[in-house]
Amino acid sequence: MAQVPAYTKAEEQLERIFEAFKEREIQRVFYVACGGSSALMYPSKYFLDRESKNITAEIYNSNEFIHRNPMSLGEKSLVILCSHKGKTPETTAAAKFAKAKGALVVSLMYVETAPLAEESDFIVNYSWISAGNMEPNPEIMNYAILYKLAMGLLYVKEGNRKYEKLVSSLQHLDTVFEKLMKTYAEKAKAYAKEVKDEKIIYTMASGSNYGMAYSFAICILMEMQWIHSHAIHAGEFFHGPFEILDENVPFILLMGLDETRPLEERALAFLEKHGKKNLVLDAKTFDLTGIDEEVRGYIAPLAINFVLRMYALALSKERNHPLETRRYMFKIPY
Amino acid sequence: MAQVPAYTKAEEQLERIFEAFKEREIQRVFYVACGGSSALMYPSKYFLDRESKNITAEIYNSNEFIHRNPMSLGEKSLVILCSHKGKTPETTAAAKFAKAKGALVVSLMYVETAPLAEESDFIVNYSWISAGNMEPNPEIMNYAILYKLAMGLLYVKEGNRKYEKLVSSLQHLDTVFEKLMKTYAEKAKAYAKEVKDEKIIYTMASGSNYGMAYSFAICILMEMQWIHSHAIHAGEFFHGPFEILDENVPFILLMGLDETRPLEERALAFLEKHGKKNLVLDAKTFDLTGIDEEVRGYIAPLAINFVLRMYALALSKERNHPLETRRYMFKIPY
Repeated sequence: MAQVPAYTKAEEQLERIFEAFKEREIQRVFYVACGGSSALMYPSKYFLDRESKNITAEIYNSNEFIHRNPMSLGEKSLVILCSHKGKTPETTAAAKFAKAKGALVVSLMYVETAPLAEESDFIVNYSWISAGNMEPNPEIMNYAILYKLAMGLLYVKEGNRKYEKLVSSLQHLDTVFEKLMKTYAEKAKAYAKEVKDEKIIYTMASGSNYGMAYSFAICILMEMQWIHSHAIHAGEFFHGPFEILDENVPFILLMGLDETRPLEERALAFLEKHGKKNLVLDAKTFDLTGIDEEVRGYIAPLAINFVLRMYALALSKERNHPLETRRYMFKIPY
Repeated sequence: MAQVPAYTKAEEQLERIFEAFKEREIQRVFYVACGGSSALMYPSKYFLDRESKNITAEIYNSNEFIHRNPMSLGEKSLVILCSHKGKTPETTAAAKFAKAKGALVVSLMYVETAPLAEESDFIVNYSWISAGNMEPNPEIMNYAILYKLAMGLLYVKEGNRKYEKLVSSLQHLDTVFEKLMKTYAEKAKAYAKEVKDEKIIYTMASGSNYGMAYSFAICILMEMQWIHSHAIHAGEFFHGPFEILDENVPFILLMGLDETRPLEERALAFLEKHGKKNLVLDAKTFDLTGIDEEVRGYIAPLAINFVLRMYALALSKERNHPLETRRYMFKIPY
């Protein structure tokens, strides 16, 4: 087949978007999506917050975005949306809404054509695990594409060189993932056995890792396993939520490598003292060979997410509750 | 005693801050606090998002704010902080951090002197229920002061006239509260009896009301009642969390009067169809006489919060678990 390889295609799509970045002023980035697709965007906002002199970044649920109707949304806005199959109605409506306001609209999706694509100025197709593609390319997975857009934007607009370090580092992500697969295969199974009968499991993180905690709580535990959950911000933990903790309450603490790590370390000390059912996934223990020191804080959540996915699979097997099982989603009208 | 009345004092403090607004350019507002004090700020961000042409608003946990260290924080930033007793160490540190960056630093607190005051350019003292003050003035309660700051800022900077409508409306809030007290006293007790043995209660809302859902989940249920909880955004509900719902899972849905109400209505329809333990607090049923139509959407969360406080008290009595009981907070080092 003469099909263009997925990597080349995504790169070409990104190049065209970077050209569009050069042609217009951008003051604000709005990250707009629902559920797991929204959670993907938290690390990119963290990057823009830390590194941009002039461009602000906000994250909104698609329907909230439309109804909140931010007054500053306009021609100097970049709206980045994501929907796996490009068919989430609220996200498609949000793209249309943003375009009508004159914003530059860029949408990520796994599929090549979809309603969301029709409402967008540009699309990028990311790689994903599916029946026909069991070896996705981490360099063009959704998180990676989102970073390329954010870092590419600051490269174009503010001369920020993290983009280059990102691109060279992402080439090593498959090796990082392979090693994590080996290290965590048995650990994930053991954990699944331990917690299979728990009714509630909290997740916790801060900074660029918070989105992973949110995603695991709402998509994996609540949606796919019907286990009660809540993503707690590691800084907020000490101002209310920690009172819920005793020896019987399971917590999953994600520890990354970004500047907010002291918040996660503080939460760890507390969990170790007062909790007994803790799972700590610490990126400091990961072999990140090939990932540039300057972007490790940003890339750690991608590695953590890979490990979390292994825990999700192990949990679903141990509980005999496939990740695909739903009672409502896509099954009834809502 | 020749003491200045609290209302007059707060007004004088606000006047001085508005003068400071006139004297400098403000591009970004950072709302910085922890837990319940942070939740207070969500409605003000909603207002700025909807109504400001040029000024952006962000909400950060105090410790996240310091470590995230947003690059755009600087002389054109207004940082608004809040700590009830002005002694939250992370919030005091955040004020100091913001001041060192050249930002205009305004802090809300209940007390008159505190470490946080020393690190701030301006303070505003709000009114609150306490042993010595059982009849706080709703016009200068924390939510009201925060709105006065946000609406005052846009009045000064962009000629937005909502400030005037806010001030005249707030004069009627005590009457609104009195009527709500009568309507909800027995309802709150009945609900408390119903759910007293529940292990988990979710809260849900969108837009300007989401902060109330967050506050009730983390401060009242988790912190003060040791009941598992999670504030779910009504738009996000349909993209993961709703799979947790069955007839045995209690939800508290807050329905406000702002532009995102359709999200809450959609959640209501789903809860009514698939859940059986729903508490719906709907501001549409409140008697809001005196509150200007143009600001009802913004003021509804204050009324909802008043009602929620009644439910919290009823719950604590029914469960024989005083709201002041803690296992960790202020009792052990953390």
